[in-house]
Amino acid sequence: MNQPILKPTVSVTRGPLPGSRKLIENGVPFREVPLSGGEPPVRLYDTSGPYTDDTVAIDIEKGVARLRQEWILARGDVEEYEGRVRQPQDDGLREGELLSVPQFDRSGIKPLRAKPGKNVTQMHYARQGIITAEMKFIAARENLGVSALADGNSFGASIPKLITAEFVRDEIARGRAIIPNNINHPETEPMIIGRNFLTKVNANIGNSIVTSGIAEEVEKMVWSIRWGGDTVMDLSTGRHIHTIREWIIRNSPVPIGTVPIYQALEKVGGIAEELTWELYRDTLMEQCEQGVDYFTVHAGLRLPHIPLTADRVTGIVSRGGSILAKWCLAHHKENFLYTHFEDICELLKQYDVAFSLGDGLRPGSTADANDAAQFAELETLGELNKIAQRHDVQVMIEGPGHVPMHKIKENMDRQLASCDEAPFYTLGPLTTDVAPGYDHITSAIGAAMIGWFGTAMLCYVTPKEHLGLPDRDDVKAGVIAYRIAAHAADLAKGHPAARLWDDAMSKARFEFRWHDQFALALDPETAQAFHDETLPADGAKIAHFCSMCGPKFCSMKISQEVRDAAKGKNDWNPDNGLSTAEIRAAMEEKSKEFRNHGGEIYLPKDAAE
Amino acid sequence: MNQPILKPTVSVTRGPLPGSRKLIENGVPFREVPLSGGEPPVRLYDTSGPYTDDTVAIDIEKGVARLRQEWILARGDVEEYEGRVRQPQDDGLREGELLSVPQFDRSGIKPLRAKPGKNVTQMHYARQGIITAEMKFIAARENLGVSALADGNSFGASIPKLITAEFVRDEIARGRAIIPNNINHPETEPMIIGRNFLTKVNANIGNSIVTSGIAEEVEKMVWSIRWGGDTVMDLSTGRHIHTIREWIIRNSPVPIGTVPIYQALEKVGGIAEELTWELYRDTLMEQCEQGVDYFTVHAGLRLPHIPLTADRVTGIVSRGGSILAKWCLAHHKENFLYTHFEDICELLKQYDVAFSLGDGLRPGSTADANDAAQFAELETLGELNKIAQRHDVQVMIEGPGHVPMHKIKENMDRQLASCDEAPFYTLGPLTTDVAPGYDHITSAIGAAMIGWFGTAMLCYVTPKEHLGLPDRDDVKAGVIAYRIAAHAADLAKGHPAARLWDDAMSKARFEFRWHDQFALALDPETAQAFHDETLPADGAKIAHFCSMCGPKFCSMKISQEVRDAAKGKNDWNPDNGLSTAEIRAAMEEKSKEFRNHGGEIYLPKDAAE
Repeated sequence: MNQPILKPTVSVTRGPLPGSRKLIENGVPFREVPLSGGEPPVRLYDTSGPYTDDTVAIDIEKGVARLRQEWILARGDVEEYEGRVRQPQDDGLREGELLSVPQFDRSGIKPLRAKPGKNVTQMHYARQGIITAEMKFIAARENLGVSALADGNSFGASIPKLITAEFVRDEIARGRAIIPNNINHPETEPMIIGRNFLTKVNANIGNSIVTSGIAEEVEKMVWSIRWGGDTVMDLSTGRHIHTIREWIIRNSPVPIGTVPIYQALEKVGGIAEELTWELYRDTLMEQCEQGVDYFTVHAGLRLPHIPLTADRVTGIVSRGGSILAKWCLAHHKENFLYTHFEDICELLKQYDVAFSLGDGLRPGSTADANDAAQFAELETLGELNKIAQRHDVQVMIEGPGHVPMHKIKENMDRQLASCDEAPFYTLGPLTTDVAPGYDHITSAIGAAMIGWFGTAMLCYVTPKEHLGLPDRDDVKAGVIAYRIAAHAADLAKGHPAARLWDDAMSKARFEFRWHDQFALALDPETAQAFHDETLPADGAKIAHFCSMCGPKFCSMKISQEVRDAAKGKNDWNPDNGLSTAEIRAAMEEKSKEFRNHGGEIYLPKDAAE
Repeated sequence: MNQPILKPTVSVTRGPLPGSRKLIENGVPFREVPLSGGEPPVRLYDTSGPYTDDTVAIDIEKGVARLRQEWILARGDVEEYEGRVRQPQDDGLREGELLSVPQFDRSGIKPLRAKPGKNVTQMHYARQGIITAEMKFIAARENLGVSALADGNSFGASIPKLITAEFVRDEIARGRAIIPNNINHPETEPMIIGRNFLTKVNANIGNSIVTSGIAEEVEKMVWSIRWGGDTVMDLSTGRHIHTIREWIIRNSPVPIGTVPIYQALEKVGGIAEELTWELYRDTLMEQCEQGVDYFTVHAGLRLPHIPLTADRVTGIVSRGGSILAKWCLAHHKENFLYTHFEDICELLKQYDVAFSLGDGLRPGSTADANDAAQFAELETLGELNKIAQRHDVQVMIEGPGHVPMHKIKENMDRQLASCDEAPFYTLGPLTTDVAPGYDHITSAIGAAMIGWFGTAMLCYVTPKEHLGLPDRDDVKAGVIAYRIAAHAADLAKGHPAARLWDDAMSKARFEFRWHDQFALALDPETAQAFHDETLPADGAKIAHFCSMCGPKFCSMKISQEVRDAAKGKNDWNPDNGLSTAEIRAAMEEKSKEFRNHGGEIYLPKDAAE
């Protein structure tokens, strides 16, 4: 590949969210929100990497810092090697066709693999009793402020008050959580996916034949982690797949997932029947060496399951599932991913790539939810999980899809039972089919519920689902909707690190600390912009009424006045000693105050505090 | 009031949704979606009134047709009278100040009231065994197509396969459903609110001191029913309240609700302590005569409850609740709405205005959910419901608010137990506090869940909640999010009329009938616009791939090919008679077709069908 290195023209979004600052504590990043009114700052989980850290220079042609490189090398169980020879078809090029897009400069980067006989997965270390640097990082990262008031129903999860590195190790060892982090993606800030940790969100990006290019995809990654994507799946299917993936991985501080069958299919010109195990394995190798952190592998879709889909309303809607079903039927053979599953394990443990066992038979409509095909595949995924566990390869299990609310819990219950609590990773589910254009909402409902029930990571759905490829606004809308779902799930599970955020926001709301409300918001820009639309005057930010009601009607203002009036006594229960006259006197005082300020509705900050 | 009638400059949105047509069957309106591919049309519930009927002329200066006028008069139990004399303060004017906004021309319209000794509520008729015209209308309206496949968990609701007028009567008689329809609002197309019927959605509109005017508010009403608002609450609080309400009611085919305490407070210059029963009663009378269909009355907030809120994070956030709490404390007296509750019943039964018993102590943050104050008030609402039932006055019960997911079901369970299954009407609930700007989503999650559990009507929340007054786009976003929640709830309850819509959409999706998908969408405009962004060519609408994946990767396309290939045999189970060769032959045939069409990705319609 004697291809000139071209400079890309990519610009990425930088800087912290308004009102937040980057806090790095012992190397672990947080989003810290300083508050006014003597309130302590609120510490939030931060997925955004160095892009929100103004003290870090970013050069996307060099990639982000290789944080884990030393840790990986220090374990002494990996070796550099030349790696597989890159092929024109890796990028969907014909023989002899030259690359026409900018290439990331990999000079100085050689792939790593496990030394012969070694297994470099975090699960393998965990089972040896080793607490890795990654596990320590995660333990620190998952501990946000703990609220003594946290309550909830976790449906049998085992969420501790404080996450220790030993707890992380134990969860990894028993297969109840995974740390997706290929040794060839040392740029990751380690994160964990498991039901006893904070609920995570995945954002899908990817070009397609129809639209999009390199610049747009890298920025989509940066953009999606800015708003809270914990991992990013690159679902590119067109030309230049290899090139785009390289750019994304080298610049990504979050784990990257892929569906390797998409690229394999490209290599056989889109003809599913022509796929072979050898070609697929070579594609896995290519992506292992690049640094993909988890692979969706549809190994649970077996030949005998396919007829179970015959009477469905929407048949097989998983892309990977469709490809493999077609292959199975065309060859009348068992799915080669199933028959070669142990071979895949052997490969993945050399790089610590995690399985995301795909649900190729997931329902594509509420009508098809929880049917025989779906659950037959889930049982098979449970079997495969046991096999992967024997190889110490990390596994999560993919789930649906389209599921009406009353059928959601059964999905979680069966997954927990079949798959020994391996992390569940669901797409939505969408709770109705009738709202194309709003499927981030139809699915956020299902995602929040299944997250509460125990799903460890929620794969986002954007407003463009079923209609087109998401653009920048859609990516943000999808990530935000899913952060809402994930956080609502953590609150309902009683996760001890979830509640302080809500309470800080509510307190700021009650005290009319508008700037604090904006700063604490999941999306500070939108919160402030919406407020400014109605009351753009800066003074309104500290006035004692909100723009919804106007000065006379703001219930929070009146409520605060009521509380203030009662402050002279510790107990203002009218049945308990306070005389009418006392209350009336206090209230009349407040009433006078209100009238005195009548001409100055927008109080200056001094008067308001 | 010798005020010249001024012409308003209001224009309202007209015409059916794209791809839908108005169907009037025996006087009852539906949204009918004709489909291609030999599929039967889908009949949907239609809240939009004559505005989507191109055969009806609209003149907002005359108001919409007085559909129920004859029915009301035919019962022989009402009389016209002069009505209350309009006061300047009805519009928030000072003595002698003239109205400066256009007035609806009421010449020829006199208020109706029950003849002495008569009770004109639908509940009263129902308990006499009378099936009214309104009940018949509703029975027809609630029966959309019934799916034999409907399943679900209704948590003890009693949803019949077919709604009969007798069933409607029985539900009204037992207080499990209400028909809000003041005899002075004959413009309504009757609708029902109850757990055994389709879940309904309310949209709030209203001016405020800060923004908005008459023209905007009337169009907001038309706009919100266009997208699926079943009722509209006019929460105006500024000047010209009476005038705005008149314009809205006369042009509204859906029930209008208000919170009369807001207007009463205007009349005393915003000083809560100066409110009196007499002034409040006069305001009720004013609104009864205008035609308001239901009143939020915060009669359940009792003096002894107020101290229960002292340790809350967000105190009392209901506007009405705050006003009354302030009154109670200032006077050290029991809430006059509680002490005069039977007087209010006496008034309401003369006009058939329904109670919406307000939850003045609803939680304003997830921290305050399900606390002693909230549930103490709910118990009182249950007592008041029993009193109203003795007067045959229709009642629904308002509910929260902000509630994390694990505390939602308790709200429904307690409400059902305390309030004898009177319809529950909740605001959201929001399942987290951290996402201002997206509270239509935080709350759609809670709304879908509580709707499934049995809530009869969901009060929408817009993206501007907590931040500002909703504009046109916000109203639409709120209504759509809540229609999603309501429909997801109906699906999960197993409502027999819910499922056909989803299945029709899913089938259209599987068969790539794009225009059918747009037409069936909750929001056809957005669905089509999103699709056009990626693939604007009209031919794409019938091509056999979707824009998400591109031609090679569309899983639905491949799945359909697999199905087609198997069609030669009734049973394509590979274990059951089909030879590899047969399948391969069929697949090779499809493969050839694909290649033959290679140069023509966007197939003309003839080739695709």
